[in-house]
Amino acid sequence: MSIKEQVSVVLVNTSHPGNIGATARAMKNMGLHKLVLVNPLEFPSGVAVGRAASALDILEQARVVTSLEEALEECKLVIGASARSRSIPWPMLNPQQMAEKVAAEAPQHPVALVLGREDSGLNNEELQLCHYHVQIPTAPKYSSLNLAAAAMVLVYEIHKACFTENGDVELSEEQYWDQPLCSGEQMQYFYEHLERVMVAIDFHDPDNPRQLMQRMRRLFGRIRIDEMEMNILRGILTNIEQQLDKRSQD
Amino acid sequence: MSIKEQVSVVLVNTSHPGNIGATARAMKNMGLHKLVLVNPLEFPSGVAVGRAASALDILEQARVVTSLEEALEECKLVIGASARSRSIPWPMLNPQQMAEKVAAEAPQHPVALVLGREDSGLNNEELQLCHYHVQIPTAPKYSSLNLAAAAMVLVYEIHKACFTENGDVELSEEQYWDQPLCSGEQMQYFYEHLERVMVAIDFHDPDNPRQLMQRMRRLFGRIRIDEMEMNILRGILTNIEQQLDKRSQD
Repeated sequence: MSIKEQVSVVLVNTSHPGNIGATARAMKNMGLHKLVLVNPLEFPSGVAVGRAASALDILEQARVVTSLEEALEECKLVIGASARSRSIPWPMLNPQQMAEKVAAEAPQHPVALVLGREDSGLNNEELQLCHYHVQIPTAPKYSSLNLAAAAMVLVYEIHKACFTENGDVELSEEQYWDQPLCSGEQMQYFYEHLERVMVAIDFHDPDNPRQLMQRMRRLFGRIRIDEMEMNILRGILTNIEQQLDKRSQD
Repeated sequence: MSIKEQVSVVLVNTSHPGNIGATARAMKNMGLHKLVLVNPLEFPSGVAVGRAASALDILEQARVVTSLEEALEECKLVIGASARSRSIPWPMLNPQQMAEKVAAEAPQHPVALVLGREDSGLNNEELQLCHYHVQIPTAPKYSSLNLAAAAMVLVYEIHKACFTENGDVELSEEQYWDQPLCSGEQMQYFYEHLERVMVAIDFHDPDNPRQLMQRMRRLFGRIRIDEMEMNILRGILTNIEQQLDKRSQD
């Protein structure tokens, strides 16, 4: 699969349709074409069409979904744009490092770049669905980029890392791995299973969660678990449940 | 003189005031503030103010002139944005090379980055007032960037070349972590604890280990677990053991 087919740009809850159009144009300039919109406030929109200029095809083929989880179902590398440091720090890349990761992994599996709302970016829950965060370096006094401007910088860096000047895919060092990586959906099932078990062993109280699930997501998220490892982890969780049941009955 | 005082962005004959505002915002994001407008079609403009967001000061201080020569009077390095190769080839830089030149020369003398009209860029006469041209690499099929998007990419590269080396914005994963990382000894205790629990839940048979512990070491070894995460993992293992004991006794 070509990089063009593997890299999606996901816009979450965009308020201004002009930013959707401008992002589509930036994507087409930089050789990308898969745009996913999570609950856009106004779409389709004439304003988006105007700003998209000759990237109308990208708008027309944009996938509109109702949750970020749905947008990320098939993605095995998810990078979210983040303007500030959060309560729980997350693995953080600069745009160039982000682009190198995309270039390395897009030949193997679907990759998503996620950008949040104009005024508030991605919320904590959304940021925790990402393996990495990317932060565009700015002047300390004014770090708030326009959404489409941020998208422009990020897809520009992806283009630099992935394509040579004549549009060919540049050969990058590929990550060698013996197993396919888990999808977002598989990770989601794992977290649900893990949470059930942590409740069963009295380790976790969903009514007083503190930051436990966030920390688990950050921990297992940055491992980039492969499918065989996932089978092992799910097997361990299942055996814990079976043993608890069995001993209760004995 | 600081780089901020030495670098001007010059917009020639801009049609859409929104692009003037968006360029001001991009400049402020990237630590620049000298904006020069050569014969803007509409300025001052409410649309420009809206798109400038918190960069209103840059719009208010913008210098408006009637010729590019006047804009460039004091500049000793002039770089013009060019989308295509021209009839007379000119020294051509990519954005990174352009930024390196700006970073090298701005401490000595005033530098200008010149961007042309939305529809047709700079004309040949204007391009010949530039020492260098800069071209943003694009997909071959669609090379026409929005004016403000092009300005964003170019000032972003200038910011990277001029400011990030001072260490205030470049983020590495290590600098960005809130907890000390585990030692090798702590990891070793964890693997021993994990193995005991996997035996207790009948998931692991040390006499027929297959590659289970190796896979667990590969999995947990490839992230650097921090001490708080380790406390959580050890806590989970301990609770599993306690619950198994308790239910056996019930």
